[in-house]
Amino acid sequence: MKKKVVTIGGGTGSYTLLLGLKEYPFDIKAIVSMADDGGSTGRLRDELGVLPPGDVRQCLVALSGEDKMLRKLFNYRFEKGQLSGHSFGNIMLSALEKMCGSFSNGLEAVMKILDIKGEVIPVTENNVELFIRLKNGEILRGESKINHSFHIEKTGLGKIFLKPKALANHKAIKAIKEADAIIIGPGNYYCSLIPNLLVDGIVKAIRDSRAKLIYVANLVNKKGHTQGFFLEDYVNSINDLLGGRRIGYVIYNNSRPSRGLISKYKKRGETLLEIKDRQSKKDFFLTEDNFLGKQSRQSSNFDVVASSRALIRHDSLKLGKALANIIKER
Amino acid sequence: MKKKVVTIGGGTGSYTLLLGLKEYPFDIKAIVSMADDGGSTGRLRDELGVLPPGDVRQCLVALSGEDKMLRKLFNYRFEKGQLSGHSFGNIMLSALEKMCGSFSNGLEAVMKILDIKGEVIPVTENNVELFIRLKNGEILRGESKINHSFHIEKTGLGKIFLKPKALANHKAIKAIKEADAIIIGPGNYYCSLIPNLLVDGIVKAIRDSRAKLIYVANLVNKKGHTQGFFLEDYVNSINDLLGGRRIGYVIYNNSRPSRGLISKYKKRGETLLEIKDRQSKKDFFLTEDNFLGKQSRQSSNFDVVASSRALIRHDSLKLGKALANIIKER
Repeated sequence: MKKKVVTIGGGTGSYTLLLGLKEYPFDIKAIVSMADDGGSTGRLRDELGVLPPGDVRQCLVALSGEDKMLRKLFNYRFEKGQLSGHSFGNIMLSALEKMCGSFSNGLEAVMKILDIKGEVIPVTENNVELFIRLKNGEILRGESKINHSFHIEKTGLGKIFLKPKALANHKAIKAIKEADAIIIGPGNYYCSLIPNLLVDGIVKAIRDSRAKLIYVANLVNKKGHTQGFFLEDYVNSINDLLGGRRIGYVIYNNSRPSRGLISKYKKRGETLLEIKDRQSKKDFFLTEDNFLGKQSRQSSNFDVVASSRALIRHDSLKLGKALANIIKER
Repeated sequence: MKKKVVTIGGGTGSYTLLLGLKEYPFDIKAIVSMADDGGSTGRLRDELGVLPPGDVRQCLVALSGEDKMLRKLFNYRFEKGQLSGHSFGNIMLSALEKMCGSFSNGLEAVMKILDIKGEVIPVTENNVELFIRLKNGEILRGESKINHSFHIEKTGLGKIFLKPKALANHKAIKAIKEADAIIIGPGNYYCSLIPNLLVDGIVKAIRDSRAKLIYVANLVNKKGHTQGFFLEDYVNSINDLLGGRRIGYVIYNNSRPSRGLISKYKKRGETLLEIKDRQSKKDFFLTEDNFLGKQSRQSSNFDVVASSRALIRHDSLKLGKALANIIKER
């Protein structure tokens, strides 16, 4: 029997992870955040009233079959005119949602067209927005706004929530319940990972599941969001959110990129993720290794926006291998 | 050996024709005008500098394989926001042209994706505009402008030409040379049919070919364009353009639509096509019959724009049958 693996995340992080996982004979279900409202995705949401296609698109590309042309096309971004900034895949997902009457039905259709290995599951089919209330009472509304607000850590996070209330996609619940392994991350902590756990029913399903619970830690801390976080802080925060269930395995990169790259990131206020206290006993199994990808930006160099986003990246194959070791062991 | 059939036309006319032809075991090559510059197509040409996708798209849909979802998607038109009015297929063809480096390469890719029966061939790969010089010296520039100018017949057509000079696609020349039958029409006379014959090399290739030359006459005359034309006028005009080669077969509808529909058309200045002189000897074989389609707008009712364009339409299957009879006979 194929091991059933569920990933929980968002766009680029899940993309990288899924590329590595699909090398193994797993039954993969990628649960994807639906809080994105920036860029091409935000414009399509605003103008057409569709659900956010961006994160789903990246997962679809990662899990798509052999037809390189279709993959490339799906990620193609227009550079001029009114279409400028739109990726073709986002437009296709939106057209299919409109045509098929729901995001889910549209997604079913596109999964067939792209010959997807596994399944991509939007965490909710409700049209929701992400909010943060800071400790000073200030409200940050929308994923894009939050993503570009760099005073969250300094002012202090009060509450993070979705509005209106989001109900979990029943497919997501089913996948989590049946999973042999659940992988959380990597990805933008407040904007991609947490929004999944805010959807009604997801945390309970994880708590009820008997799956191995794995966390793939980010490589760097995000300026003003998780600035100053150590590995332990991420794990503790997620454990708190799960309320009862605890992360059992952590994948952590202990390799340093080139000095040039580190200082480039530092200038943007982003620092490498460190372990706070190596001496203290952890209640999770730590897999640490060099998980850095080459700076060659992998296969997504046709996607101008995505490739400019991150230079320090996970290596998909190294990640896949480490995860497979955890998932396969008894 | 499959009979080799070449169609020469534009958008909706070729769509209707090809739907009928593909029921027969012919090797079909659809040569398509590249002069369109209106609507979604015009915007994509202007903003992205691509070649006009609209007419090609309609032929692709007609010849596409069994996947109804892809066909429907290809014709899907956005109704809101900046994408409003764009058909998905036009966007896809433009993305593929940009990505693959040329319209031809993009078209190759999409023909595979859509599992096309036969081939769609843009008459030229040069980026050209259609011009009309009227007898009073007035210049009408652009297919869309010409399409909406209703004084051409009254003022008198001086010259119709493409600018810059357009060279024929070598695939179009080859297809014409090897054809067993060449079908011209139906379609917008000045805006879809004639532009094909203005491309350098097309007329000579038709002249040199030994194919049966068939003309499928329109059902109605277009206001201000071919107002007052009889069947013989179309045939004579095309024969004049071909300069030496003459149309051998004509398909003509002799059935009248409902009075209500006729008067609806009359109000728009469009009248049914008539034969001027039934007594005079013709130098072509005339196939006349009831070729009217049902008013049910056939399978394109998901394409809002196209379906509002014409109510009096050819019946694809009847057309296909009559053409097959001509093509198959020795």
